[in-house]
Amino acid sequence: MKIDDNFYMKLAIDEAWKYQLLTYPNPAVGCVIVKDGRLLAIEAHKEAGMPHAEINALKSAYLIENPNSILKTKNNSQEIHNFLIENHDGYFNDCEIFVTLEPCNHIGKTPSCANLLKVLKPKRVIIGHEDINKIASGGVQTLESANIEVSLRCMEKEAYNLLYPFIKWSNGTFIFYKMAQTLNGCIDGTISSKMSQLYVHTLRDKVDLMLIGGNTVRIDKPTLDARYIGGRAPDIMIYSKNKIFDNAIPLFKVANREVFISDDLFKLLDYKFVMVEGVYKLMNILKEKIDYIVLIVSPKIRNGINALNEIDIDFEIVHENYLGEEKIIYLKRK
Amino acid sequence: MKIDDNFYMKLAIDEAWKYQLLTYPNPAVGCVIVKDGRLLAIEAHKEAGMPHAEINALKSAYLIENPNSILKTKNNSQEIHNFLIENHDGYFNDCEIFVTLEPCNHIGKTPSCANLLKVLKPKRVIIGHEDINKIASGGVQTLESANIEVSLRCMEKEAYNLLYPFIKWSNGTFIFYKMAQTLNGCIDGTISSKMSQLYVHTLRDKVDLMLIGGNTVRIDKPTLDARYIGGRAPDIMIYSKNKIFDNAIPLFKVANREVFISDDLFKLLDYKFVMVEGVYKLMNILKEKIDYIVLIVSPKIRNGINALNEIDIDFEIVHENYLGEEKIIYLKRK
Repeated sequence: MKIDDNFYMKLAIDEAWKYQLLTYPNPAVGCVIVKDGRLLAIEAHKEAGMPHAEINALKSAYLIENPNSILKTKNNSQEIHNFLIENHDGYFNDCEIFVTLEPCNHIGKTPSCANLLKVLKPKRVIIGHEDINKIASGGVQTLESANIEVSLRCMEKEAYNLLYPFIKWSNGTFIFYKMAQTLNGCIDGTISSKMSQLYVHTLRDKVDLMLIGGNTVRIDKPTLDARYIGGRAPDIMIYSKNKIFDNAIPLFKVANREVFISDDLFKLLDYKFVMVEGVYKLMNILKEKIDYIVLIVSPKIRNGINALNEIDIDFEIVHENYLGEEKIIYLKRK
Repeated sequence: MKIDDNFYMKLAIDEAWKYQLLTYPNPAVGCVIVKDGRLLAIEAHKEAGMPHAEINALKSAYLIENPNSILKTKNNSQEIHNFLIENHDGYFNDCEIFVTLEPCNHIGKTPSCANLLKVLKPKRVIIGHEDINKIASGGVQTLESANIEVSLRCMEKEAYNLLYPFIKWSNGTFIFYKMAQTLNGCIDGTISSKMSQLYVHTLRDKVDLMLIGGNTVRIDKPTLDARYIGGRAPDIMIYSKNKIFDNAIPLFKVANREVFISDDLFKLLDYKFVMVEGVYKLMNILKEKIDYIVLIVSPKIRNGINALNEIDIDFEIVHENYLGEEKIIYLKRK
């Protein structure tokens, strides 16, 4: 197997995917640092407001040769920036820094990564995809102005797939369909493990809106909150022509959430980050609008309902990962 | 992400899985070499008679700092051994060598890896799983006798899953069920890409026996050879009580293959490496005997027959990989 720029960029991309969708409204980004051929750090941006991928990776890389540094205790972006600017002492001059997205060039919730790299002066910065955010872009120019070698478009297609949700929610709406099934496509009964359920609650905590079918609400009487992780319950749109629902259904009783009943799917476009759950008959209507399907597959065969058996769609697998013993697969329509 | 022994061993394990089942009768083995912290090689054993994983990795690692060495032209195990013994000049003394299986200690089709390592004297050898083959084992003792530090049982469970087919076919019979389906479990029509079909022919070329159902033979009239790769056609057992078949069915006309018709599944145990194809109703009868299911999943949803809908089985995913745009998933019954 070839150990080249693509190899290290792939490590950064895979690390970033672990936090895909969870960084909203920020992009999922990964960063790998190789110092004089030695792999020192594989890190990612984990959540909005927390340090960017580059900052996590620079911190990890610094601590490899300075394991007792006070840096260990610093978790805030600004503090890590300040520490590294004062104490780097050329540590990064023989480093190659692989980052899936052009380092940000503006000071937002966290300081600018491009300005920090300009000071740290690594040997080379390898970038997967340019920034599409006009406010944050310009990172390449900042690096080049400091005579840092920059290599662009390393694994650009994979970096684009990673960035795609961010591109959509930055300029409009990102809609994903969450499904859980057994290996043979069965969807009824309890399919998912506790760990996958926790993950679904983590997603619910992040999205602006959940779309759910009226019949599912009437039959399953769900709560659709994020209680497993103590998270925020998303607003709900119930897709239904018939506007009459039993008010005792738990989802209506959750505090600090809006619920509305509508059969106008254009309303989804008023939101930036939308999750669709459990309306299989809507798949055909929605399929032109859905950006990703997030499919959780439990490795078992069961005799049950195969809800998708009326549909014909071709996908590209943009990524897959483990959720404990189950798989999570990110699919994009071809 | 932690970059430790487990990280490097996982790279070796993943590389080895690319050749899982294709190394028969040898085990699938991977090897990673890290020299003074620098990742130099990720290699695997690819096919019986070809160099072991360690040899491929030692060659790759040597060529990193000696890219114009004549070693580049050597592909034969004995030649690579001889070259390295004469020319290593201490190159591997600061190397850590991660190998998924204890290095072999006997001279078979290829020279002993443990003896070669004894001469090259790496700093440390990290081993996933001990050798279960009495003839080849003893590698650890050979290394330790040369004062090479040995770390055992790194990612042992994953290394065991990788080794499991070899353990089974060395001491009896390894039986796997090959299936192809869409995401939603549909099995009819043309499911797999050309690349997956090539892979299936590569498997057929390796196995001792294929088991196929009588009805499949009567209806589909298959050839069941390995013509896409110019490979050897495996012997065939047709599972059927009714022994009467149309002799014009192509599978009977393939040269140099035995075909027999039987409803005695114990006959499978006369073979070491058995592949089962297309007898879904046998899954329930065979499930106690099947070691792995090799499931090829095409990322599309189709309206069709879901052959597995009458079965209840829980699996562990032991590995998964891409076959072009499709997935190949290795499942083991829980």
